[in-house]
Amino acid sequence: MAAALRTLFSTRHMLMLSLALNLSLMLKMIEEKSSPAESLIIMEKLQPKLIAEVSPSESTQQGRFEAPQPHFSAQETGDTPDDEDSIVNLDHGDPTMYENYWQQMGDRTTVVIPGWQFTSYFSVASNLCWFLEPELANEIIRLHGVVGNAITDGRHIVVGTGSSQLYQAALYAYTSSGASEPVTVVSAAPYYSSYPTATDCVKSSLFRWGGDARVYDGKGPYIELVTSPNNPDGFVRDSVVNRSGGILIHDLAYYWPHYTPITSPANHELTLFTVSKTTGHAGSRIGWALVKDPLIAKKMVKYIEVSTIGVSKDSQVRAAKVLKVVSDGCEGAGGSDKVECLFRYSHSQMTRRWMQLREAVKESGVFSLPEFSPRHCNFLEQSFGSLPAFAWLKCEDGIEDCESFLRRFKIVTRGGRHFGVGPSYVRVSMLDRDRTFNLFVRRLSKIHR
Amino acid sequence: MAAALRTLFSTRHMLMLSLALNLSLMLKMIEEKSSPAESLIIMEKLQPKLIAEVSPSESTQQGRFEAPQPHFSAQETGDTPDDEDSIVNLDHGDPTMYENYWQQMGDRTTVVIPGWQFTSYFSVASNLCWFLEPELANEIIRLHGVVGNAITDGRHIVVGTGSSQLYQAALYAYTSSGASEPVTVVSAAPYYSSYPTATDCVKSSLFRWGGDARVYDGKGPYIELVTSPNNPDGFVRDSVVNRSGGILIHDLAYYWPHYTPITSPANHELTLFTVSKTTGHAGSRIGWALVKDPLIAKKMVKYIEVSTIGVSKDSQVRAAKVLKVVSDGCEGAGGSDKVECLFRYSHSQMTRRWMQLREAVKESGVFSLPEFSPRHCNFLEQSFGSLPAFAWLKCEDGIEDCESFLRRFKIVTRGGRHFGVGPSYVRVSMLDRDRTFNLFVRRLSKIHR
Repeated sequence: MAAALRTLFSTRHMLMLSLALNLSLMLKMIEEKSSPAESLIIMEKLQPKLIAEVSPSESTQQGRFEAPQPHFSAQETGDTPDDEDSIVNLDHGDPTMYENYWQQMGDRTTVVIPGWQFTSYFSVASNLCWFLEPELANEIIRLHGVVGNAITDGRHIVVGTGSSQLYQAALYAYTSSGASEPVTVVSAAPYYSSYPTATDCVKSSLFRWGGDARVYDGKGPYIELVTSPNNPDGFVRDSVVNRSGGILIHDLAYYWPHYTPITSPANHELTLFTVSKTTGHAGSRIGWALVKDPLIAKKMVKYIEVSTIGVSKDSQVRAAKVLKVVSDGCEGAGGSDKVECLFRYSHSQMTRRWMQLREAVKESGVFSLPEFSPRHCNFLEQSFGSLPAFAWLKCEDGIEDCESFLRRFKIVTRGGRHFGVGPSYVRVSMLDRDRTFNLFVRRLSKIHR
Repeated sequence: MAAALRTLFSTRHMLMLSLALNLSLMLKMIEEKSSPAESLIIMEKLQPKLIAEVSPSESTQQGRFEAPQPHFSAQETGDTPDDEDSIVNLDHGDPTMYENYWQQMGDRTTVVIPGWQFTSYFSVASNLCWFLEPELANEIIRLHGVVGNAITDGRHIVVGTGSSQLYQAALYAYTSSGASEPVTVVSAAPYYSSYPTATDCVKSSLFRWGGDARVYDGKGPYIELVTSPNNPDGFVRDSVVNRSGGILIHDLAYYWPHYTPITSPANHELTLFTVSKTTGHAGSRIGWALVKDPLIAKKMVKYIEVSTIGVSKDSQVRAAKVLKVVSDGCEGAGGSDKVECLFRYSHSQMTRRWMQLREAVKESGVFSLPEFSPRHCNFLEQSFGSLPAFAWLKCEDGIEDCESFLRRFKIVTRGGRHFGVGPSYVRVSMLDRDRTFNLFVRRLSKIHR
């Protein structure tokens, strides 16, 4: 009998049957024993992906990966009750909006790191960037290829602890050969508020912050930072200092199709990107630079060696996995209905948020926002105006200090002076969780003079 | 019949039976189908801990957590055949020696990070060190309590991307109030070779490297770095500049019982530690500072905010888990036979390695090593002389350039000049993998004049 059975069922078949029996028994136990909340937890342990599809997260009203409708009802905004004492803090660009997407993606980007891994400082000791994990390098190249937002051929990849570290590494690389005077670093106002602080932090004799690039008329060597789309105002930019011999650093943290149309692959000397604004994993602190000149790349590596002896390998392998899943989900997505593609999903989110914000601004009558002309996005295969990660809000009606004005309504933003312009502007993060964002637009819409 | 069975077996019992069936079937499949290598892989997936116990790693000859015998036979050293063309690189302090221990610990320190975690820059926004994961803070405090090597009461913990970043954060914190002259930074020679480079990297106007603390006679404000036990020579140190008003930074990276007797808990203004040298996880880039003055701690946090906007949370949770497992394994270990305790295990390894090295030096006759008097270790409850993470080797017999001399035998070390002393000294890492270390001592023992 046993022998006969063995001819009918291989061990493998028996195993499949047995596994099926497990699952049915487990599900039965859940039914028998558990409260709904308990069964959710048990099921999550069993099948994280399945749960992600039905988990009651902040925006489940939209269903899984259904592109959110750009039209929203008063009811929807009203879903988040406004506790008037709560502080709505949108000062930082904390990209917690993405948490929801990754929850829905379940265990696809879960990483498991065994305890014995990464006892070495080195990834590949003989590589130019010896602390760069090869799998991260591969996924960076692949993702740029999928999206078409940067040329990676003939570039050296330097990984950094966020793009902040790479910014300083680039300053060091371009100035460490040692001129007699510090090299002036400029950027057109409004510029990213961290540039002045990061540049002048330890009062380097190699470089110093020079302020607004539009008014720069120095004769010596200079470095111009070009952030495009720009933080804080979202506009696409080119260099503005019209002089030969200037060094350009391109910060393209926001040159991704959820924020702005991808019109051509970037092709610069030195370009910075960051995981924080690409996939939302700000806590991992991973950025990368694409660098043409190997000598500059080597000096950047030297800076990172001296300042932090490399970059967390745990975060590198995690970033590699996340970028891989993004590429897998977006490869060939373009204009198609591959709604799991991060960029399509987030693009819809941003479209909805910007419409909510513009409606709130209209309802209030006290503020204004920049307008963006539609351009064709080669990746999404559609035309749209930019949907920046920050709103560059202006107080009208003679309100001089917009940051203080909004604080009266317990809305915390970053005032224009930090960005080299007047206090009638504030920068507001558009990437916070739904709850916070909804509170913000609701409160904003009720502000009248 | 079915009803009768149901009274005999609950669903839970059926599940247990079914799971047992799975396991037996899987093991059968492994037997039937797999080559030994395949079954190792499959088994590893099933039971990582079990595999770790039997995996053929570099030093399995010692068995799991059997304290290695300090006496070794010629046979044992001979286990590693010397390919005379291979380069033995012991320039860096790459702590790959620990890989073997963590392999043997199996899955106890495996971390699983879901894809939706860490989309925020913040750990606890209201904390002084807002990017410090609370579980890491708890495990740091606990481990210092278990080992008794530092007082944590009344200290602020600042986490850094390795202690290199914390060193720079400390320089910034003590000097950013802005004197007219850069503050001089000194350390008694031989000092850690990275200090001069890290201090003068971007030619700060806040601080500058001043060299050997023993010859410092400046009148202005100064910072003295006290590394104890010292890198490169392993000696326990106190400050040497005998002047009031000096600021002390204590780098206690090696003040752990595998390297040196723990004689009392450190009680300083600002103390640096690093996971790299405590548990060997150098690739995670996690260090921490214990800081008395909250204003200094706040400025260090500011520096890390500006330079890298915090520290990898992936690596922080991993470090927290590793430190927890170390505390669990070492709590109350002291002089007992709790051989799984990392410090006991590594202390035995270091004892063996130092004996091997001293025998090789004796056999060669060309070199000398520092001697360390035994002191009582409160943690291990025994007396021993220091077992430094680096050997500070001196070439005798009129060999002037020890680094070049050793390169002739394809041994790469770091010459004395990097540490502020003469070229007759070299620093050699004692923390590399068994294979490399064995090659090193074997080759060294054969060098004669």
